[in-house]
Amino acid sequence: MEMMKAAVLTNIGKIELQQRERPQPKPDEVQVKVEYVGICGSDVHYFEFGRVGNFVVKKPIVLGHECGGTVTAVGSAVKKCKVGDRVALEPGVPCGKCEYCLSGRYNLCPDVRFMATPPYDGAFQEYVVHPEALTFLLPDGMSTMAGALIEPLAVGFHAAKQSGASVGQSAVVLGAGCIGLVTMMALHSMGVKKVIVADLLPKRLEKAKELGASAVINSGETDVEQAVLSLTDGAGADLVFETAGSPVTAMMTSFLVRRGGTITLVGMTPKPEFSYNFGNIMDKEATIKSVFRYCNLYPTAISAVACGDIPIEKIVSDTFPFDHAQEAMQYNIDHKADVTKIVLDFTK
Amino acid sequence: MEMMKAAVLTNIGKIELQQRERPQPKPDEVQVKVEYVGICGSDVHYFEFGRVGNFVVKKPIVLGHECGGTVTAVGSAVKKCKVGDRVALEPGVPCGKCEYCLSGRYNLCPDVRFMATPPYDGAFQEYVVHPEALTFLLPDGMSTMAGALIEPLAVGFHAAKQSGASVGQSAVVLGAGCIGLVTMMALHSMGVKKVIVADLLPKRLEKAKELGASAVINSGETDVEQAVLSLTDGAGADLVFETAGSPVTAMMTSFLVRRGGTITLVGMTPKPEFSYNFGNIMDKEATIKSVFRYCNLYPTAISAVACGDIPIEKIVSDTFPFDHAQEAMQYNIDHKADVTKIVLDFTK
Amino acid sequence: MEMMKAAVLTNIGKIELQQRERPQPKPDEVQVKVEYVGICGSDVHYFEFGRVGNFVVKKPIVLGHECGGTVTAVGSAVKKCKVGDRVALEPGVPCGKCEYCLSGRYNLCPDVRFMATPPYDGAFQEYVVHPEALTFLLPDGMSTMAGALIEPLAVGFHAAKQSGASVGQSAVVLGAGCIGLVTMMALHSMGVKKVIVADLLPKRLEKAKELGASAVINSGETDVEQAVLSLTDGAGADLVFETAGSPVTAMMTSFLVRRGGTITLVGMTPKPEFSYNFGNIMDKEATIKSVFRYCNLYPTAISAVACGDIPIEKIVSDTFPFDHAQEAMQYNIDHKADVTKIVLDFTK
Amino acid sequence: MEMMKAAVLTNIGKIELQQRERPQPKPDEVQVKVEYVGICGSDVHYFEFGRVGNFVVKKPIVLGHECGGTVTAVGSAVKKCKVGDRVALEPGVPCGKCEYCLSGRYNLCPDVRFMATPPYDGAFQEYVVHPEALTFLLPDGMSTMAGALIEPLAVGFHAAKQSGASVGQSAVVLGAGCIGLVTMMALHSMGVKKVIVADLLPKRLEKAKELGASAVINSGETDVEQAVLSLTDGAGADLVFETAGSPVTAMMTSFLVRRGGTITLVGMTPKPEFSYNFGNIMDKEATIKSVFRYCNLYPTAISAVACGDIPIEKIVSDTFPFDHAQEAMQYNIDHKADVTKIVLDFTK
Repeated sequence: MEMMKAAVLTNIGKIELQQRERPQPKPDEVQVKVEYVGICGSDVHYFEFGRVGNFVVKKPIVLGHECGGTVTAVGSAVKKCKVGDRVALEPGVPCGKCEYCLSGRYNLCPDVRFMATPPYDGAFQEYVVHPEALTFLLPDGMSTMAGALIEPLAVGFHAAKQSGASVGQSAVVLGAGCIGLVTMMALHSMGVKKVIVADLLPKRLEKAKELGASAVINSGETDVEQAVLSLTDGAGADLVFETAGSPVTAMMTSFLVRRGGTITLVGMTPKPEFSYNFGNIMDKEATIKSVFRYCNLYPTAISAVACGDIPIEKIVSDTFPFDHAQEAMQYNIDHKADVTKIVLDFTK
Repeated sequence: MEMMKAAVLTNIGKIELQQRERPQPKPDEVQVKVEYVGICGSDVHYFEFGRVGNFVVKKPIVLGHECGGTVTAVGSAVKKCKVGDRVALEPGVPCGKCEYCLSGRYNLCPDVRFMATPPYDGAFQEYVVHPEALTFLLPDGMSTMAGALIEPLAVGFHAAKQSGASVGQSAVVLGAGCIGLVTMMALHSMGVKKVIVADLLPKRLEKAKELGASAVINSGETDVEQAVLSLTDGAGADLVFETAGSPVTAMMTSFLVRRGGTITLVGMTPKPEFSYNFGNIMDKEATIKSVFRYCNLYPTAISAVACGDIPIEKIVSDTFPFDHAQEAMQYNIDHKADVTKIVLDFTK
Repeated sequence: MEMMKAAVLTNIGKIELQQRERPQPKPDEVQVKVEYVGICGSDVHYFEFGRVGNFVVKKPIVLGHECGGTVTAVGSAVKKCKVGDRVALEPGVPCGKCEYCLSGRYNLCPDVRFMATPPYDGAFQEYVVHPEALTFLLPDGMSTMAGALIEPLAVGFHAAKQSGASVGQSAVVLGAGCIGLVTMMALHSMGVKKVIVADLLPKRLEKAKELGASAVINSGETDVEQAVLSLTDGAGADLVFETAGSPVTAMMTSFLVRRGGTITLVGMTPKPEFSYNFGNIMDKEATIKSVFRYCNLYPTAISAVACGDIPIEKIVSDTFPFDHAQEAMQYNIDHKADVTKIVLDFTK
Repeated sequence: MEMMKAAVLTNIGKIELQQRERPQPKPDEVQVKVEYVGICGSDVHYFEFGRVGNFVVKKPIVLGHECGGTVTAVGSAVKKCKVGDRVALEPGVPCGKCEYCLSGRYNLCPDVRFMATPPYDGAFQEYVVHPEALTFLLPDGMSTMAGALIEPLAVGFHAAKQSGASVGQSAVVLGAGCIGLVTMMALHSMGVKKVIVADLLPKRLEKAKELGASAVINSGETDVEQAVLSLTDGAGADLVFETAGSPVTAMMTSFLVRRGGTITLVGMTPKPEFSYNFGNIMDKEATIKSVFRYCNLYPTAISAVACGDIPIEKIVSDTFPFDHAQEAMQYNIDHKADVTKIVLDFTK
């Protein structure tokens, strides 16, 4: 019986390296040797608090759902993957049978099994098995670290697609953390080149600028509404994205959007309910869209990285060896302001 | 010089019948003898308070913008209308040059001249002139009273269209006043037959039932969320429309909508800002659309009435002769609970 | 071992009643006692010629894919169905894993298993097993014969949806056979009430008229282009549907469609290639859509029938007892002009 | 009275420089000193044959409709332009009143007045007047030659938009003349980076390659279908554009498009009718879109050039001084294979 190492969250704040049996693929699954796994805000939240919203960790769980690696075995019915292929794994496995799945919005499947969402284990382990249908080949020249980062990038693309983004429009992105940055990058690749980014942290704004923000606003120093209006000839932006997950920035959105424009809510606020100016929305006939994960976007995100449009690896601020998973999580908590994305490296 | 009678709002709460010069059409305009004009909530609001939102009555104004009548003269460039044609008038005249106009969303034109919105006079007068392009012929057998009611019906269609309504979906309409009813009727004509209507007033719910609501909920007696969930197998409705203009009902919407569904805000709340549960919106990846007047929908609304799908005249609760405009306005204020739509009749 | 009767196509033109083992449901399947099965043009084509396009009958096959019945057993994982439920079966079972399936266009799945398409057996047998996900409950008051007819109606809805049909538009349907009629009925239910129908056969036109065509054109007696232009104020129709499967009618479409309108090809022509006037298409900036089966439309079609909008049973011209399957097929061939839809009745 | 030079087509093949009165702007018009005008295929066609389709030159006409210049005077109602502004002129002036105009598809306006389309004069003259609404400011750093080329680029964007192009898709462009190149450039800016271009002429293919084609196919040497299938893993391209205006390439499209994909017809064929394989279209449930000029795309095209995404000036193969208009036209005819775009330069 082949074994492997797994980093298991055994208690709040405590990750333990354990030996587990290496999982074997079913007929339509592939077995993947994990090489890189990004740490998501939800992973940190489970580590720190033992829950995210209604999802509560009740027994030891393996975290991690942003995963790239190399195929090491394939099930008997697998056709498109073979041993040695480098791949990215889409971490949510929908039921395939409900009306959301049948109609192509499988991110809304109520029976989805999502990596690292209780009770399902994630990818902080040396090997995972995964359905072939949700395993995506990486083109030559694209690293498995980039493959791991396709997951957050898919969120950015979903946000951009939900907003109806169209070439030549203007956009404001509130929040320059990982999700703000991938949203901006997705917008860029769709021809939305005028992207104004606002955040409180200068370091994040620098990163946004480096990655091509057309303007950045330090929301601690500058009135965001005035700045945005002044940058858009007084009209507001066609598209406004809230990625900071704060009621303060969420409240701003109706003031920043243009008549007839669209607001897209990406960041989850700590409290679900807050005060909002719907009068602005109605005067402008604006639309509010929201984002729950993503669907059908791995191929898009992979091709945008592969063709050079999106330098996704630049969102990585820190890497840690897999064995230091505990340390990586703690670092993420302790250096929130400096971290855009930590990646666990299984190759070292 | 030909003269005519006009009902002029000379002071808050005071409408005076005056003799005015009969307007003459410019080359691309028609002159219409007004036969029926519906009284809109905004007319009543101007009458009662002298303002609606930022629009303030600063000098005497003629109210009324829901107007049907007969063509009595045409400008030299007019082609599709001739004297004797019965017509409905779309009351907002956009600039035709801004980007909203050019791209077909002319309801968002910042320079629109809208009947009975200060400083533009409306249709509470015996004759009006109007651009031919916004004058729509009524088919044989369709009355000019129905023609007047095309205006609120166009709001209903715009709400239904904004929501993306599609045959076979389920809907909840909050509020069974005029706008709630026309929204339901527009939905019906688009194949959305399951329309649940909620209101506080039994008389309105009776009317909704009479006009084809699949279920009605008295929100004073029944928990609306429980009732809607129970009527939709626990899922919520595909489409939720807020037409009551109350923060209380607006707040309900996120609880009533289905995963992946759409909320459409139609009623303007007295205060623009209120508390809202966006957590529900994000969990469900729901969309919030809004409605500002309408565009490109007069032909649609006319054909839906003409083919018998929508018995629009049934929304009329009361008619008054034109000369009694003052009395009609006062009646509307005093009997709010009983009025769905008052129409001024110029033919008596 | 339980047995059942099956009507097996053993040779071209020869259907034989055989005893076969009754199929048993897998965990996520239901077993259904078949009550009504419609005969489709493709069934007749297999019967008459042993092939449809590239699909060739190489061994005995059970035809029939328009099927309604009652659940007699359920697999262990089945949740929404129970024994005694009356149901309609969506006959194509897609793979659930390819990009077409994942993105909601499962009708384009290259690995679909479709009833009565070689090598898969269909529903001319007393019992079938079927995935629960593609088994749809019929509401009270809706017959299993109507359930069987949901299949062709879904084609009509797919045609209407592909065309982008919207309330108030005008349409021309070329061909008043089964598919022409269901297309018209689907359009009606979506608020397209002006539907002009053309055919060569007076009997079919009578049926179209009875089912609500706003005008009918005998294309053997009248110039269709002239008639359509005259019925549409010289403009042509917003939507044109070709359901006759003839190059002659297909060729007409570019002349009948309105500037900016949409043509939808539903009927398969005997030869794939024919001459077409694309100059008209480009002058009008028209769109040509096409239809391959349908997807995600059973619930829509069922609700349109259940709410009374679509009297689907009226398309049935003849019924035969199941045991007379051979006779029914032959009758269909011999009386093509008189048949709109033959249904095999298993309850007699 | 101020005069100006105009290049007037006085006879087939004969352009004469004449002195004409300088046009003066109406209240909502601007007067523009013309600096660059591109020569379009239609200009050449009028020059060579005296007609394009149904448009026949019946009296002397000034050709040219791809125009950039500097504002020299403004009408009394003009707001956004001022003297000295550098601008691009959208050459079609729609009526603003028909249903196509009101609904935002003003390119379909039957009463459009389009520069250089009989009987309307174009821009081969030193000054033109134009409605402010269709006059677009060029950002700093963008030349008026680029401004002139916004016109063909708008066609490219309209083609890309009509096709529903979406980031990450694959495309084939048939024809590498001016319209093929601008279509490719528009696709690039919308995130469609995999664009395969086919043409007969090596020089054109070189240009396509230089401008970023992911692959080029010499259709005189290579089987286009085989080449495209091989470049798309056997699937065909999501999007296929016919820009060559030949029945031969048009016929190819159904073989090159992917299951579920979209073909867009951009080039007008000499004969409107030709043989086409609709069987392929139906098997694949493909869509055929078409392109008639463009609408609402000048701002998009300008911003795509201004942000550096599209090096539009690179499509220019030759420039001639305005005074040499006759020579430029003749050169275009004589060197068809070498010309991608000739621009008349009024500044020399």
